[in-house]
Order: sequence, then C-alpha cells, then structure tokens
Amino acid sequence: MKILIGVIGAGVASEEECATAEIVGKEIAKRDLTLVCGAMGGVMEAACRGAKAEGGLTIGIVPGESKNDSNPYVDIPVVTAMGHARNVIVVRSSSAVIAIGGSFGTLSEIAFALRLEIPIIGIKTWDVSTEIKKAETPKEAVDMAIELIGSSA
Amino acid sequence: MKILIGVIGAGVASEEECATAEIVGKEIAKRDLTLVCGAMGGVMEAACRGAKAEGGLTIGIVPGESKNDSNPYVDIPVVTAMGHARNVIVVRSSSAVIAIGGSFGTLSEIAFALRLEIPIIGIKTWDVSTEIKKAETPKEAVDMAIELIGSSA
Amino acid sequence: MKILIGVIGAGVASEEECATAEIVGKEIAKRDLTLVCGAMGGVMEAACRGAKAEGGLTIGIVPGESKNDSNPYVDIPVVTAMGHARNVIVVRSSSAVIAIGGSFGTLSEIAFALRLEIPIIGIKTWDVSTEIKKAETPKEAVDMAIELIGSSA
Amino acid sequence: MKILIGVIGAGVASEEECATAEIVGKEIAKRDLTLVCGAMGGVMEAACRGAKAEGGLTIGIVPGESKNDSNPYVDIPVVTAMGHARNVIVVRSSSAVIAIGGSFGTLSEIAFALRLEIPIIGIKTWDVSTEIKKAETPKEAVDMAIELIGSSA
Repeated sequence: MKILIGVIGAGVASEEECATAEIVGKEIAKRDLTLVCGAMGGVMEAACRGAKAEGGLTIGIVPGESKNDSNPYVDIPVVTAMGHARNVIVVRSSSAVIAIGGSFGTLSEIAFALRLEIPIIGIKTWDVSTEIKKAETPKEAVDMAIELIGSSA
Repeated sequence: MKILIGVIGAGVASEEECATAEIVGKEIAKRDLTLVCGAMGGVMEAACRGAKAEGGLTIGIVPGESKNDSNPYVDIPVVTAMGHARNVIVVRSSSAVIAIGGSFGTLSEIAFALRLEIPIIGIKTWDVSTEIKKAETPKEAVDMAIELIGSSA
Repeated sequence: MKILIGVIGAGVASEEECATAEIVGKEIAKRDLTLVCGAMGGVMEAACRGAKAEGGLTIGIVPGESKNDSNPYVDIPVVTAMGHARNVIVVRSSSAVIAIGGSFGTLSEIAFALRLEIPIIGIKTWDVSTEIKKAETPKEAVDMAIELIGSSA
Repeated sequence: MKILIGVIGAGVASEEECATAEIVGKEIAKRDLTLVCGAMGGVMEAACRGAKAEGGLTIGIVPGESKNDSNPYVDIPVVTAMGHARNVIVVRSSSAVIAIGGSFGTLSEIAFALRLEIPIIGIKTWDVSTEIKKAETPKEAVDMAIELIGSSA
C-alpha cells in the first residue's frame, strides 16, 4: 500500500502559494510518497505539477462529474460528482495533510483533519488549533509529515 | 416549501451550550420554521427538544446507517451513512445556519456555509470570518437568521 | 419519529406511471405516512403532488446544488449536491420502498433496497428478485408497505 | 492521465468468480491499464491480486472509515466512509466496467453504469439490458473494454 499525503489549498491561489505548493509536490514525489488532492486548479494543480516533474504519482478526488474536470497533472482521477463533500474523502485518504493558504474550502478540510485526528501541517494557513503544526518551508512541511506519520502509525 | 434553519454544534456540549440550543430550537418552532441538524446529541438534541416543545418539525441528517442512530426529538431522520460528509448536506439544506459553540465538526460546517455563501449566525462560536454574524441571545440569533434570509432571497 | 415511505421511479415517466404515482402519494398521505423521494420530476413529482393533495408531508432528497432544484410539491428539500449518490439516501431513509416503472436510476435504488434488506414493493418495475413484492394497484402497494414494515419492525 | 477499468462483483464470491476476476485483473495490468474497484474481498480482492501479480496499479474506493478496511492488494485506498454510496464513485471513475457475477451491490453498480452510459462488459452477471456486452472469458472482457473505450472516446 502506498502512503498518501494530502495537499489542500485554494483552487484560485496566489503566485506565492502556487510556488510553495509546487515545491511541496516535488518533495512528496522525491520521497516516493503519493500525492492526493482535490483535483482542481491553484494550489492543487501546482502541487500535482511539482509531483509530476519529479516522476511522482498524483491522485485527484474530483468534485465534478467527469475525469476531465481535473487539472492536467492528475494521474488518477477519482470522480465523485459530490462537490464539496469530496473534501472529507481527500482528508480521510491522507496519512498526513499539508495545508497551504486559506480559502474556506481549505478550512473545511482542516476541520475534518482535526476532527479525525489526521496529522496536519500548515504553511501560512488558518490558525484555528495548536494541533496544526507550522512549517516555514515546503521541505520542512514534508519532513514534518513523514515524522508525524511515523509517530502516529 | 418550508424554510429550513440549520442548527450546528457539538454532539457533546456544555450545559450552557445545550440550554442556548434548546431556546434556539423553541424560537425556530415559534416562527413556524423547520429545524435541520446533524441528528446527534449535544447541541443538536437540545435544539430538536426545544423545537418539539413548541410543536415544531425537526429534520435530522443522520451520519450513521439507521434511522435509530438519531436523537429522540428528530421527526424526519434522513439516513446518509456518510459520516462527516453529511455535514455539507446539513448546511446546503439550510436557508440560514446558527452555530453554537466550537467543535471541529462545527468548524467544518461553518467553513461550508462561508464557502457556499449561506447566511450564518454565531453564538460563542469560531471567529474565523466577519461573515459570521454574532448574536448574543437565541432570540436575537433566530431574528437575525430571518432577516438575513429575507435579504438574500 | 415519522414513518417514511420511499417512492422511486423515473424523472421522465409515462402518463400511466405518473397517474399510478399520484395515487400512491395520495394513499401514503391518507395513512398519515411521510413520503420521501428523489425530488425530481416524473414519478417523483406525481407522487409528491398526490401526497400534497391529501395534506401529506413530502421530503425530497435533491441531487442538485439548490433547494430550487426540486419539484414544486416537495415540502422539505434535503440538498445533497451528490447526484446519483443521493439514491442510496432515499432508500436508507425509507421504512419501505415502492418502485414504479423502470429506469436505470430506479434499478440502482431497487438494488440498494435489496442489498439493505429494506422492504420493497413493485408496480410494473424491474423483476430482478423474488424479494420485490408485486402490487397491482397503488392502494395495494401502500397496504403491502405497511404490512411489511410491521413484520420487519 | 491513466485509464481506469472498473471491476465490480461481490465481496463474498464463488471460487469460479474469483478465478475469473483474478485473470481479469492480470489482463488489465498486462495492458498497462489501472484497476479500480470497491476495495473489499471476493471478486474485488481477486482482481487486485491478479493485477499486482502482473505489476499493475490498483485503486480501491473504500466504503469504510480507514485505509486498512481494504484488501491487501490495494495500492491506493481512497477512503470514503460512505458505505454503498461509494459504488457510484467506482463506476464514475471507470472508463469501462467489467461485472463478474451477481450480488445486489453489483446490480446497483451496473445500473449506475447504464444510467451514466459508461461501457459495461458482463461475465455471467445480471442480464438487465442489451447494453451490457457479454464476454465469455476474462481476456475477451478486457479486449472488449478497450474497444468500447476507443469507440466512446
């Protein structure tokens, strides 16, 4: 079984957030981990693009009705047609979640991760619990994810 | 079509939160509105109990697999067997949402309401957006809900 | 807690199917039972219209994103935004299901009812199991539903 | 983007069905296609085992709450916690579906595939529509799936 790392963030994001997400994706792939996300644009697309640049595998939990409703860097589109309800699937499928930035959709995913006690690392994201471990850099975030998975396994 | 008001809050809640929720439920029923909630205990049960005490109608969006997995004051159990993914159904079915207190499940519902631009009123709950209108009392919360529904319709 | 009877059938249905569904809806309401359905047109709309004509209560499990994506005879729109995945919610919320006619969507609901061992009565519908009790008339169908609920309770 | 082939069938299946499913899984992997299924035992487990024996990639759409609620041959567990509602995700994520044998859960998936006009091939399964293309052998089933995907693309 592969270890999945969730990357969550807005579908429309700033340049800085996307740049961060792309490196997070690269770092995930470099460690031979699998990336899972919500399949859309912005942070999700940037993370997938990073992972593919390093030869990684990307899973997209698609809110829409078709596999083509996903960003072009998704290898495996899982088509839910469930809109925002797919957020909880992204979180549940992740051994750890890395949150970048701060949309309301991202906040719902952070809340689910906290509720389900799935390790969560944040880079400039919602500050709603001390359970969200803060990382300064993408590399640090992925290192923390691996460490948290190890200690929660 | 009936107008549904969502009441969201923790399944295990303080006495104060439950007392607040019960009055919110009463105020909803007094105005001939329909209450919808997540069907569990705590804030949800107290709100349903209040609504029933005033002869109101209560809808419970059940996370479990059976109609019997709901609190005894639910008139209409809608059985999802979808766990926390049912949170988004509670929110989407509401013309306005009243949040009481502060669990992580509640936070996920607040995030969905904000994302979907459904009016939300908070009583001692998460302070994550100025879009959450603060109410001091249950009566004020229900009055604000009605006013916000009117202006958003 | 109210007893919910599911009425399932195609969103685009024949005149005969709709006439049958309307009487089924009436018979449900006459017995003070609550009708639950998929909220769309055809059989679902006809059944809701019948129930409302007799002063009944109608619950619609809406596949779309808005309460307005339901037929005009739905009292309580439960908004899932989950497309066909809402079919299993219709079935799970029913103490018994009455199937009218034969679309593929209806077949999926019949399959779920059989899988979940929820009593199912069919009027000119899919003949995929002897567990589907055949009724000749709407009145007979609702009488059989009540009898099956009694013996399964 | 990878091409996903769904394999659907009962979680508790006969030896013959499992033997068929295992070869279907092998044939899928040999053609460098990705297998998606409901993550459970029986036909699903046998198909995954076959795919892994040929070095393929297997996606499991888990009905339960944990990635560990999947069979040991699933590489990528997508955790829905949505019970049978995950059936529609299995179908929607597939470019073509191969049905083996005949449980009610399988029937719900066949119904969804027919409703969504996703190509479906059956091996000794429900005979509810001429749209279900009949295959005699696992190899023929996978060949037919590829042909149907080509003509529907």
